[in-house]
Amino acid sequence: MVAKDMLCKRRIVAMWYQKVFSFIFFIYASFYFSETVGYEYEMKTFNVLLDHFSFALQQDTFPLRYAINDSYWKGNGGPIFFYTGNEGMIELFIENTGFMWEVAPDFDALIVFAEHRYYGKSLPFGNESFASPDKAGYLTSLQAIADFVDLIEFLKSNIRGAEKSPVIAMGGSYGGMLSAWFKIKYPHVIAGAIASSAPIWQFIGMNPCNTFAKTVTSDFTRESPECSNSIRHSWKAIDNVTATDEGKKWLSASWRLCENITDDNGGVYSLKNWLSEIYSDLAMMNFPYAAKFHHALPAYPIKVLCSYLNDSILPDRQLLESMFRAVSVYFNYTGDAECLNLDSSALYPDLGTDGWDYQTCTEVVQDMCQDGVDDMFVPYKFDFQGYSDSCYNQWGVRPSRTEGITLYGGRDISTASNIVFTNGLLDPWSGLGVLENVSETAVAFVMPDTPHHLDLRASNPADPASVRQVRQHLRHYMSRWIAEHKAASS
Amino acid sequence: MVAKDMLCKRRIVAMWYQKVFSFIFFIYASFYFSETVGYEYEMKTFNVLLDHFSFALQQDTFPLRYAINDSYWKGNGGPIFFYTGNEGMIELFIENTGFMWEVAPDFDALIVFAEHRYYGKSLPFGNESFASPDKAGYLTSLQAIADFVDLIEFLKSNIRGAEKSPVIAMGGSYGGMLSAWFKIKYPHVIAGAIASSAPIWQFIGMNPCNTFAKTVTSDFTRESPECSNSIRHSWKAIDNVTATDEGKKWLSASWRLCENITDDNGGVYSLKNWLSEIYSDLAMMNFPYAAKFHHALPAYPIKVLCSYLNDSILPDRQLLESMFRAVSVYFNYTGDAECLNLDSSALYPDLGTDGWDYQTCTEVVQDMCQDGVDDMFVPYKFDFQGYSDSCYNQWGVRPSRTEGITLYGGRDISTASNIVFTNGLLDPWSGLGVLENVSETAVAFVMPDTPHHLDLRASNPADPASVRQVRQHLRHYMSRWIAEHKAASS
Repeated sequence: MVAKDMLCKRRIVAMWYQKVFSFIFFIYASFYFSETVGYEYEMKTFNVLLDHFSFALQQDTFPLRYAINDSYWKGNGGPIFFYTGNEGMIELFIENTGFMWEVAPDFDALIVFAEHRYYGKSLPFGNESFASPDKAGYLTSLQAIADFVDLIEFLKSNIRGAEKSPVIAMGGSYGGMLSAWFKIKYPHVIAGAIASSAPIWQFIGMNPCNTFAKTVTSDFTRESPECSNSIRHSWKAIDNVTATDEGKKWLSASWRLCENITDDNGGVYSLKNWLSEIYSDLAMMNFPYAAKFHHALPAYPIKVLCSYLNDSILPDRQLLESMFRAVSVYFNYTGDAECLNLDSSALYPDLGTDGWDYQTCTEVVQDMCQDGVDDMFVPYKFDFQGYSDSCYNQWGVRPSRTEGITLYGGRDISTASNIVFTNGLLDPWSGLGVLENVSETAVAFVMPDTPHHLDLRASNPADPASVRQVRQHLRHYMSRWIAEHKAASS
Repeated sequence: MVAKDMLCKRRIVAMWYQKVFSFIFFIYASFYFSETVGYEYEMKTFNVLLDHFSFALQQDTFPLRYAINDSYWKGNGGPIFFYTGNEGMIELFIENTGFMWEVAPDFDALIVFAEHRYYGKSLPFGNESFASPDKAGYLTSLQAIADFVDLIEFLKSNIRGAEKSPVIAMGGSYGGMLSAWFKIKYPHVIAGAIASSAPIWQFIGMNPCNTFAKTVTSDFTRESPECSNSIRHSWKAIDNVTATDEGKKWLSASWRLCENITDDNGGVYSLKNWLSEIYSDLAMMNFPYAAKFHHALPAYPIKVLCSYLNDSILPDRQLLESMFRAVSVYFNYTGDAECLNLDSSALYPDLGTDGWDYQTCTEVVQDMCQDGVDDMFVPYKFDFQGYSDSCYNQWGVRPSRTEGITLYGGRDISTASNIVFTNGLLDPWSGLGVLENVSETAVAFVMPDTPHHLDLRASNPADPASVRQVRQHLRHYMSRWIAEHKAASS
């Protein structure tokens, strides 16, 4: 099955971009699960239609999970804060959206976190949910949003005092995309939406294909040009050193690889892929405070990593020795790691990949590339046909080139209303998001010195001023939307 | 199968409202086919997805018909006028939307009429399209709109000079609902929408249930109170007279019924149903000019009919004799009819009922009622459960109480942009439509003295001033939308 393996490999290259998008939540989550005492909520289920957009499967429903907290709710038409769950267990987002918990008391808000269909325990066909295209096919963003619409309708009809409540949707990353799209497609259902670090303009043809790679690179160059140059030169150094069996052995030993690089095991490829992934992860997670996830990280980890990379024109082996010390910040900051495992699934053992992998094979396809010149990565061109073949091979579906734009409008969202888009400019996804106001009431705020949706997280003394300010803006808009809603419905 | 028959009968009572909504086009059409020389166009097909909103059926497509005329098109980014076809053969709407043909030359417009899925020849499964719920289930308004979206994308990509063309959607009645919903759900795809006589607010719970019946009644009262009173009294007169066998014979003979009323054939019920239908039809078709459809009609047919009903307190038989002379205006204006056939399908032999009947059993359900006091009809209460059971019995689906409002926003469409709603206030559907501006750019015009979407038809010397004025407004808005689009895309 050479053809199949080659196809899979081709797609894996294309997909580490999409993967990091998903991974980040799991990393956050494991950090939070270990660090926080946790929020209190009741977990419930609500039966949703498998297919909201035909009558062919009218009888088919499944239980969607949602968490609810009414500690602050006074039952008199106060707002509902509704988290539009993204690609994972809803618990992850409950624990990672401290902003929502922090502001709820000031608004007497009911707190709801809804799980996204086909993730967590909201699986329409249980373990068989991805077994065939006719089962997996109802995993789409719009079907998920329609679940949220019906859940909101149900809550408003069944919770005393909620009938006329304004609902504010919020989410980060893909969850932020869902919040924004929710307001765009169902403007009458929610009063406003907060879309944090939501790359809604990531679809094919919308950006220079190296936008993501360039931002990651600039996050490293910002610490020192020698840092990104060292990484840029390292790929060739890896090739040079691993050209001989002795070199492979040397690198495997120096880097303490769990599995030695050989001619047969694709180790060079895995190493480069692993490195690319962690650089992107760090660019998203370059937090101003130390965070312990699977591998503990210091505050501003890129700065720490770059402190080891101050000479990019070292001889190959010396450069790679520096590189190893540098990336040890990522995988072995505490010094506990026995060896370096290049299997990226080992990086994120909690990741349930099926759902997101399927979504990157249907709606969420980016045409990302790297050229090694304007960015520091191994040159790579996006090949839609190869990507599509691989998807078909795996899931029996082919990605749509245009669906995301056709459905949600691409850049032409001038009719959007009551959305706040927030982006940290250090976040590589920010270049694919909304950085300027798109209409009078769909506005954008940028945080120059901030990574991936820091603003939605619980406040921290180390938060930059820009994040604190954006949280004030969010409160302001939430107040305004609630007031507007009350004026309109009174 | 008594139960089944009773269920069917119950739904038939509820559904004559929905039926007249559909019938009217066929009546128009047959008029036009006989009266006009016809417009020139090329008929083509475009393959659309059976299901736009899941990936389960990604391979399933079918050819959707559309008509295109480029006589006025200059290939330099001029507008595309796009008729959002409604519940019937697209030819019917091509012939009945003279306004679009009349204005196209002034705008150098490309003319496109798209057929609605599951109507005309755009049948996904041919003659089997309604054979089972899994086949019929993809007949929804949103799937139809998604067909239009993809067709427009295809046309813009494949017609030289159309890439940046503004598209203006237009439609009348259900076609107008589709135009408005198109702009609401896909605001980025079209520059503007004209929704003529589009009762988008007809869903359950949105209006007093006798809104339709009251407008029909007032159309008759307007000619003379004795006219509507005669009709109001006639139901009891029919009951009184047909209480005896002799009375049944008398009425059958006096009214020249094709089939005599007996105890067993439900003739009294059929007669009342037939009368209710024609009064509603006349309220929609009360044109200012004579029209020949299946049965020729004079100009202002209600006025003519009412001229026979000037004494509502006549004895029963005399009243019914007057009634017969009056309704002869409808079924036998020319005097050619040999007998009066109460089978409503005989009224509209060209009607393909499956599609619309299915839609009234899924999305398009109105909770219409009559009380015989504020209106002139036989009292009737809408029974959702009975209606639903009948639908399930016939199509294997149950109607949704809320889908139309949930999906399109009900009255809460303040974010809608660039839509013109037009309504004739004599049209009984107008009370279920948009009569006031809903936003700065989604505006409404009413024509006090006009029936069902007269404004979209070809101009006629007898058109009231209000219709001529509305057509000027439409031209104005079309110009504005085109200018806005060009400004935004340049």
